Amino acid sequence: MKGQKIKELYFGGDYNPDQWDEATIRKDMEYFKKCHINYVALPVFSWAKLEPEEGVYNFEWLDKILDILWENKIYVCLATSTAAQPEWMSKKYPEIMPVDNNGLKRTHGMRNFYCVNSEKYRERAAALAEQMALRYKDYPGLVAWHVANEYSTFCHCENCEKKFRVWLKKKYGTTEELNKRWNTSFWGRTVYDFDTIMLPTERNDDDRFFPAKQLDYQRFVTDTTEECFLNEAGVLRRITPDIPVFSNISGFIKKLNQFQLTRNMDIVGWDNYPSPKDDAAFPALKHDIMRGLKDGASYMVAEQSPNQQNWQPYNKLKRPGEARLLAYQGIAHGADSSLYFQMRQSVGGQEKFHGAIISHAGTDDTRIFREFEQLGAELHQLGGQILDARTNADVGILFDWDNWWALELCSGPTKDMDYLLQVAHYYRAFHKQNIAVDIVKFTSDLDSYKVVVAPLAYMVKPGFAERLTKFVENGGTLVGTYMTGLADETDRCIFGAYPGPLRNVFGLWVEETDALYPEETNQIIMNENREVYSCSFLCDRLRLENAKTLGTYGSDFYAGEPCVTVNEYGKGKAYYLGTQPDEAFLKMFVHKVCEEADVHPVLQVEEGIEVTSRENENGKFYFVMNHNATEKQIVLPEGKWENLIGAQPENGKLILKARDVAVLKCQ
Amino acid sequence: MKGQKIKELYFGGDYNPDQWDEATIRKDMEYFKKCHINYVALPVFSWAKLEPEEGVYNFEWLDKILDILWENKIYVCLATSTAAQPEWMSKKYPEIMPVDNNGLKRTHGMRNFYCVNSEKYRERAAALAEQMALRYKDYPGLVAWHVANEYSTFCHCENCEKKFRVWLKKKYGTTEELNKRWNTSFWGRTVYDFDTIMLPTERNDDDRFFPAKQLDYQRFVTDTTEECFLNEAGVLRRITPDIPVFSNISGFIKKLNQFQLTRNMDIVGWDNYPSPKDDAAFPALKHDIMRGLKDGASYMVAEQSPNQQNWQPYNKLKRPGEARLLAYQGIAHGADSSLYFQMRQSVGGQEKFHGAIISHAGTDDTRIFREFEQLGAELHQLGGQILDARTNADVGILFDWDNWWALELCSGPTKDMDYLLQVAHYYRAFHKQNIAVDIVKFTSDLDSYKVVVAPLAYMVKPGFAERLTKFVENGGTLVGTYMTGLADETDRCIFGAYPGPLRNVFGLWVEETDALYPEETNQIIMNENREVYSCSFLCDRLRLENAKTLGTYGSDFYAGEPCVTVNEYGKGKAYYLGTQPDEAFLKMFVHKVCEEADVHPVLQVEEGIEVTSRENENGKFYFVMNHNATEKQIVLPEGKWENLIGAQPENGKLILKARDVAVLKCQ
Amino acid sequence: MKGQKIKELYFGGDYNPDQWDEATIRKDMEYFKKCHINYVALPVFSWAKLEPEEGVYNFEWLDKILDILWENKIYVCLATSTAAQPEWMSKKYPEIMPVDNNGLKRTHGMRNFYCVNSEKYRERAAALAEQMALRYKDYPGLVAWHVANEYSTFCHCENCEKKFRVWLKKKYGTTEELNKRWNTSFWGRTVYDFDTIMLPTERNDDDRFFPAKQLDYQRFVTDTTEECFLNEAGVLRRITPDIPVFSNISGFIKKLNQFQLTRNMDIVGWDNYPSPKDDAAFPALKHDIMRGLKDGASYMVAEQSPNQQNWQPYNKLKRPGEARLLAYQGIAHGADSSLYFQMRQSVGGQEKFHGAIISHAGTDDTRIFREFEQLGAELHQLGGQILDARTNADVGILFDWDNWWALELCSGPTKDMDYLLQVAHYYRAFHKQNIAVDIVKFTSDLDSYKVVVAPLAYMVKPGFAERLTKFVENGGTLVGTYMTGLADETDRCIFGAYPGPLRNVFGLWVEETDALYPEETNQIIMNENREVYSCSFLCDRLRLENAKTLGTYGSDFYAGEPCVTVNEYGKGKAYYLGTQPDEAFLKMFVHKVCEEADVHPVLQVEEGIEVTSRENENGKFYFVMNHNATEKQIVLPEGKWENLIGAQPENGKLILKARDVAVLKCQ
Repeated sequence: MKGQKIKELYFGGDYNPDQWDEATIRKDMEYFKKCHINYVALPVFSWAKLEPEEGVYNFEWLDKILDILWENKIYVCLATSTAAQPEWMSKKYPEIMPVDNNGLKRTHGMRNFYCVNSEKYRERAAALAEQMALRYKDYPGLVAWHVANEYSTFCHCENCEKKFRVWLKKKYGTTEELNKRWNTSFWGRTVYDFDTIMLPTERNDDDRFFPAKQLDYQRFVTDTTEECFLNEAGVLRRITPDIPVFSNISGFIKKLNQFQLTRNMDIVGWDNYPSPKDDAAFPALKHDIMRGLKDGASYMVAEQSPNQQNWQPYNKLKRPGEARLLAYQGIAHGADSSLYFQMRQSVGGQEKFHGAIISHAGTDDTRIFREFEQLGAELHQLGGQILDARTNADVGILFDWDNWWALELCSGPTKDMDYLLQVAHYYRAFHKQNIAVDIVKFTSDLDSYKVVVAPLAYMVKPGFAERLTKFVENGGTLVGTYMTGLADETDRCIFGAYPGPLRNVFGLWVEETDALYPEETNQIIMNENREVYSCSFLCDRLRLENAKTLGTYGSDFYAGEPCVTVNEYGKGKAYYLGTQPDEAFLKMFVHKVCEEADVHPVLQVEEGIEVTSRENENGKFYFVMNHNATEKQIVLPEGKWENLIGAQPENGKLILKARDVAVLKCQ
Repeated sequence: MKGQKIKELYFGGDYNPDQWDEATIRKDMEYFKKCHINYVALPVFSWAKLEPEEGVYNFEWLDKILDILWENKIYVCLATSTAAQPEWMSKKYPEIMPVDNNGLKRTHGMRNFYCVNSEKYRERAAALAEQMALRYKDYPGLVAWHVANEYSTFCHCENCEKKFRVWLKKKYGTTEELNKRWNTSFWGRTVYDFDTIMLPTERNDDDRFFPAKQLDYQRFVTDTTEECFLNEAGVLRRITPDIPVFSNISGFIKKLNQFQLTRNMDIVGWDNYPSPKDDAAFPALKHDIMRGLKDGASYMVAEQSPNQQNWQPYNKLKRPGEARLLAYQGIAHGADSSLYFQMRQSVGGQEKFHGAIISHAGTDDTRIFREFEQLGAELHQLGGQILDARTNADVGILFDWDNWWALELCSGPTKDMDYLLQVAHYYRAFHKQNIAVDIVKFTSDLDSYKVVVAPLAYMVKPGFAERLTKFVENGGTLVGTYMTGLADETDRCIFGAYPGPLRNVFGLWVEETDALYPEETNQIIMNENREVYSCSFLCDRLRLENAKTLGTYGSDFYAGEPCVTVNEYGKGKAYYLGTQPDEAFLKMFVHKVCEEADVHPVLQVEEGIEVTSRENENGKFYFVMNHNATEKQIVLPEGKWENLIGAQPENGKLILKARDVAVLKCQ
Repeated sequence: MKGQKIKELYFGGDYNPDQWDEATIRKDMEYFKKCHINYVALPVFSWAKLEPEEGVYNFEWLDKILDILWENKIYVCLATSTAAQPEWMSKKYPEIMPVDNNGLKRTHGMRNFYCVNSEKYRERAAALAEQMALRYKDYPGLVAWHVANEYSTFCHCENCEKKFRVWLKKKYGTTEELNKRWNTSFWGRTVYDFDTIMLPTERNDDDRFFPAKQLDYQRFVTDTTEECFLNEAGVLRRITPDIPVFSNISGFIKKLNQFQLTRNMDIVGWDNYPSPKDDAAFPALKHDIMRGLKDGASYMVAEQSPNQQNWQPYNKLKRPGEARLLAYQGIAHGADSSLYFQMRQSVGGQEKFHGAIISHAGTDDTRIFREFEQLGAELHQLGGQILDARTNADVGILFDWDNWWALELCSGPTKDMDYLLQVAHYYRAFHKQNIAVDIVKFTSDLDSYKVVVAPLAYMVKPGFAERLTKFVENGGTLVGTYMTGLADETDRCIFGAYPGPLRNVFGLWVEETDALYPEETNQIIMNENREVYSCSFLCDRLRLENAKTLGTYGSDFYAGEPCVTVNEYGKGKAYYLGTQPDEAFLKMFVHKVCEEADVHPVLQVEEGIEVTSRENENGKFYFVMNHNATEKQIVLPEGKWENLIGAQPENGKLILKARDVAVLKCQ
């Protein structure tokens, strides 16, 4: 990653030594060494401690901690600490406090309780960032700047409203244009003056009942959050131009368009807190999204939990080996770090029961500590050889935040619309077969892929249809689904049949779409061999033009009508799935499509074993992860295989215990 | 219906041509002709377009549309467009914005976001109505005025509060009387000054914890909504005295007392959006309620969906034939129209995925368009012969909004109290046997009925008990249930045993009422033949005086005690159901009661086939509707039967395909 | 109880004669006599009636009622009527209206809608109390003062906020100390000035995300509610020093620390409204809590329902004998009264369908009335012999409000944390075996107990660990559980392993705690006999020091690790349950622990029969309650047994019908 100072994967994470005494901190250093910890992030939430009154700064306590860290050769990601302004500041400058979706002004309390558009907030944040940068610019352990924390505040204050009006005026120029794009004729919303437009909230129900406006508001929040980031980043870059600047992304990624936000960051860093009920594919998808944010560049896993969390409904312990498995899964998908919240458990507060490498017990005599000793030793042994290694994928899955927002703002056809789960459904089929996938922007070039999947590409952005069409013309394989090609960028529906400008490439149009109750299913009957699969969620009634039927519905009044089709187009072909198939169908379908397109798994292994590869000037590294709770054997292809972190393969076979991992190279 | 200009059922509905260009509108006219569309309603939500600034009107665009419509001989229901005031008006006159139940002032957004008591709203609405009336009074296609849209706004602003106090003073005269009627001794609510009374809201919890006050508030809302309607209607009637004026009623009918509201309307018009999970009886009941609003006069189905909706949780396509079946069900129950939201699908906004006769695809090559072509042709062929035909019913089911509100405001005996579902439960038993039913006001004369059912007649209004008693004395059959005769008009309980003044006619009193958990049941064991039925919900413990036991409870500590009784009274009899019987019981019971009372089905047919009749000077029309998804055969009574819309009966037998309909006459 | 004027258990309850005319009241007196009613409480909610305008009092109507009552020798608990201030007062002094947790000011409405910190409220309440005390100090029937009603209002107004700051300053002295105790380093909440601290609300999310602050706020509410009670009590005690003063405690006991609140009350009185789904143990536990509030003193059951309620979701009738059974259960656990809401059913208002001894029917010819005739006759016959008799228990179960609040404020390890249900789980095992239990404060002396159970003793208050340790050293048997010894009084976690200062006495520490999903279970396998029990909820992973393993987990990665242990310590032993065992385990375990500790059931009876005893100078009284719906036989120990209220035992055997009760003495 940009600015990496040591030839090792970063290992460590959030550290809050301001909560305890020096003896404890010194003890921590011993523990860190045992675990080969080389990186900590701090002080994420110490603004109140750093600036006890306006313009008066108190850095002595931080100096001392930083000294101890550097004595111990622990590298530091310095946080600007601007995610929680001091109580006195909220009181002195009420404009900083955000207004919630019900139009009620917040009072000082939680973190991330500030209006990103508050000039005063930005002024004070920049001032703090400047102080920190000036004070620590020559600190030898400084490896990165961490700005704020998990940006996500949606404010509905008057100041935001005013800025939103300016934003709209800039975007649309005239109210006539806005009226047209927002289709204000519907329900009598014609606008004559930008200054009468109100932010969408629960007070006017526009947040739920005026999708075009709400969509623009969400874009506005990303735009102004970006400004807010740049406000601090600009100061930091001026003073320490060589130090990378970023902000960590919440695992709940929906709220802000991260493609946009991270374009200004030097590093992508995200917080990975899977639910104990997630399967392996779901965090894998998020890792691939993160790698996709900067077109394949390696990224940072900025937070994970070493053990249980506190804010899940039921906080399960990480099973033995589970933390290590998740650490390698991140690296396997492109991360150059494995970082944790937190090094030592907090003595109090909301997250006092969140797991840590060093628990309240304060001892290294715990199962978790021993697991981190092992993991740290392994990562230390791996050294820098994997850094910046890249993943080569023949398959791209299209992904887009505007599409996400617009799709879920829709009223109809079903209330269960969840874009991320839909994308995950299609992603999972590739993941299970260990076919490498890139997550790709709607605006990206597709030339490098053999197969492109576009799940629920509801919104047709300018150039999107042309790019997909050209991709197929040139020999690519495209897979599209229901809910494709319905609306333009401001959520106006395509006049003329769906999928609009993609009608030709798919060779069909969609007459109507039936929504199924959650307990309902239909069937897909394949023409070729009469195999029957289950399908659910939505059922398009398709009108074929040039497309050929591959599968038909098995029941309901549209039984016998096509639901899976293919269209030969140019040198390529475009598949269309008119309904949500079950996993068995997708297993068959993905296998078939990839075979045809000459796309192959990284390695052939049993189900439940994940394999990825990364490649750089040091070679190609295979990550083999046994997600099963039982031991598995992998038969390796011909070659001289070496495991960089554990037991070596014998006779071409690798034994992996439950949740065990291997990092292989073949010479 | 009043003011009907053509001798045809109105066929068409909401049209929003302001969303697209003239070419599209011209294309629509072709499509309309193909479907025999003869009626559109517009512009329902165009105030902002019509009055861009205060007192400045812009009708040119509407003139043009109306011209095109009249060129094509499409009749027009002109909407006054007052359901969504312009944004500039909300900003200029904040008093227009309503205050919600939490005491928070709304901001401009959704439709129906205005205070019906705002003088400024009324002034501006009347001004617009006047402009429209003056401009279009001589428009030849004008057949009705549609005021506002689905009135339903409950406002809690200071102005409403002041008006509520005046309303209360007028109703009760003195605080002493109010204290008595509201029983303010309970929980220390004694009022000394009308000016201290506050609207019931979530801020004072009076909306949930002060039933008598909340009940009066709901009456006040109906009263002032009525004023608000009359405000516009008065202007319209002054200028176009011959044109009927109405406002369409939401299918969620609970909020306003429609008996009262429609007394000032020339036509009853309602919006019929059944859930895909409703059985045939539920919309049938609502149709019968609508016919009952004006004592049997034919009414208007003002909106239905031609296909899927967007705002159901899961929006299913209308099955083939389903839209036609629902259209005829409306006509079968007394409607003289079949109107739809909407003619053409909106390009954007909240309801952009709501079904339409012309979908986004913009083609007549769709299943739905073809169904409307067929339906339009049939209705055109039927012509005017059915207009104003009336339904003759021997059974009346009593229904009342005050009763509804008061019953559901009750705390206890069960939280699952749902008056409409209760009424539907009893209605369904008649509907399944095709026994015609009128829905009757609590204040109506009952002389014309042989059987009167009074489900959960909780509130005893003045004269109510007397009317029921006289009805039975004169030979009528009365069926009453649990939750009868508990309270007076201001929700004060009957002192002395329930059912209060109906004790004599039922010949019993209710000692106590047990509530069952949803998973619990008891049994009804019939004395006569020991047949056993299931019952649930509530179980009255009855103390018989003159009544005779027909059935007893099968279990619990009141096993063996009476739960179904009959009382011979005068020339008639009164049945009492002390518990909610299952459908099997009601099938038996309704059959028995009707047989005894010489009440018979319209026609004898298989289950799942609905039959109604309407009669006028052109004869008697039988509507036979097959709600099954399979073909059915009906054996017709002796006579020469003719089907006015489809295949003719042969050898006295009529074949109806799945969801098919016949309109029969017998010569 | 203190100030008891008659040698009988108080029998009667809330009476609201201001709702009806004198004839009805006179009729009530007849009914009261039939039932031996000797006590009524009134007027609980009549402030508005008593003080129609500021400083103007109207007592005449009350004089008249009191006269009638005394004519009939009904004793009176006079309520100060301050739970619902008049509407004019809320309007005149808006400061009285509380602000809710969303920061929204309430408007006049419900009872208990006043800020306990309002000086104006306190002034007016004291003035009313003074007027009442002066007027009725010589009223011969006066037996107690009832202040307000079910205190429970949490206000978030500015005045409360100011008082909270003063309270914090008094508690912590300096912001440094507060910062340390609240661990404000977490999430950047450092406080520099008490005057910037805001009340925790939904506006700042501190009510959910800042446990230490919220915990102090809840303590502050108890403190200031105590002040509010003392405000009136002081006036009353000055004028009528011999009359006991109390306020009735809601059965929802969580909101206020009742150990603290009742220390200023002369009597503990509580309102017992079990859900129809509660088993016998749950109200028994609450009774024992009430007895524990004043270290075993007899208390008052101030309210129960004679029949159905209205505010349960489903309001079931009390089964025959059920009201009597519940009445005796209260007395059996230490109550010297059986009081009811209400004597006669209200004519209107929120609770008009709540059961009463005299229902709306107004007759004595009801099942319920007859049950109260029987009960009244029995209690009259029992006379005063049981008064002030005490329960002797060898088992103490520790219980604490701070612990309750802090435990449930925790984020993690599971969202299903419910302290009362947890305590009930352990209590139930003793209750089922009829082993007498005291509920004991965390600060109480434990010397008198043989066994002490400390369920989820999360919070270690000063001296707590020392007391428990000494108890075991001296030969006591201690039972502890998961979630023990995690935090100090301000919710800071124990640094060093849990259970902190209790580590030695239990001979172990807790490495980590796994949360189970509701549908998950693990097993306890007992070392001794390989018996297998089920466990769930949480699973500690224990590290034994001196403790011995009694049982181990049956599954998951910690299968085979200890989950039930015992530690010999001094002369006693300490058991630790690392997981929530099922009822079967607790039956075995409680039996074993009690046998070892020489603790025995009151009587040996079949399951479902509850037995308690109370003892005073008149002897020892055994209460035998058959909670079964079937007849049961009890074999009595040797001796001459007499049943004071029903059929006598024969041949050493007592027959109890379904829900029947005996009060036995052995001579």
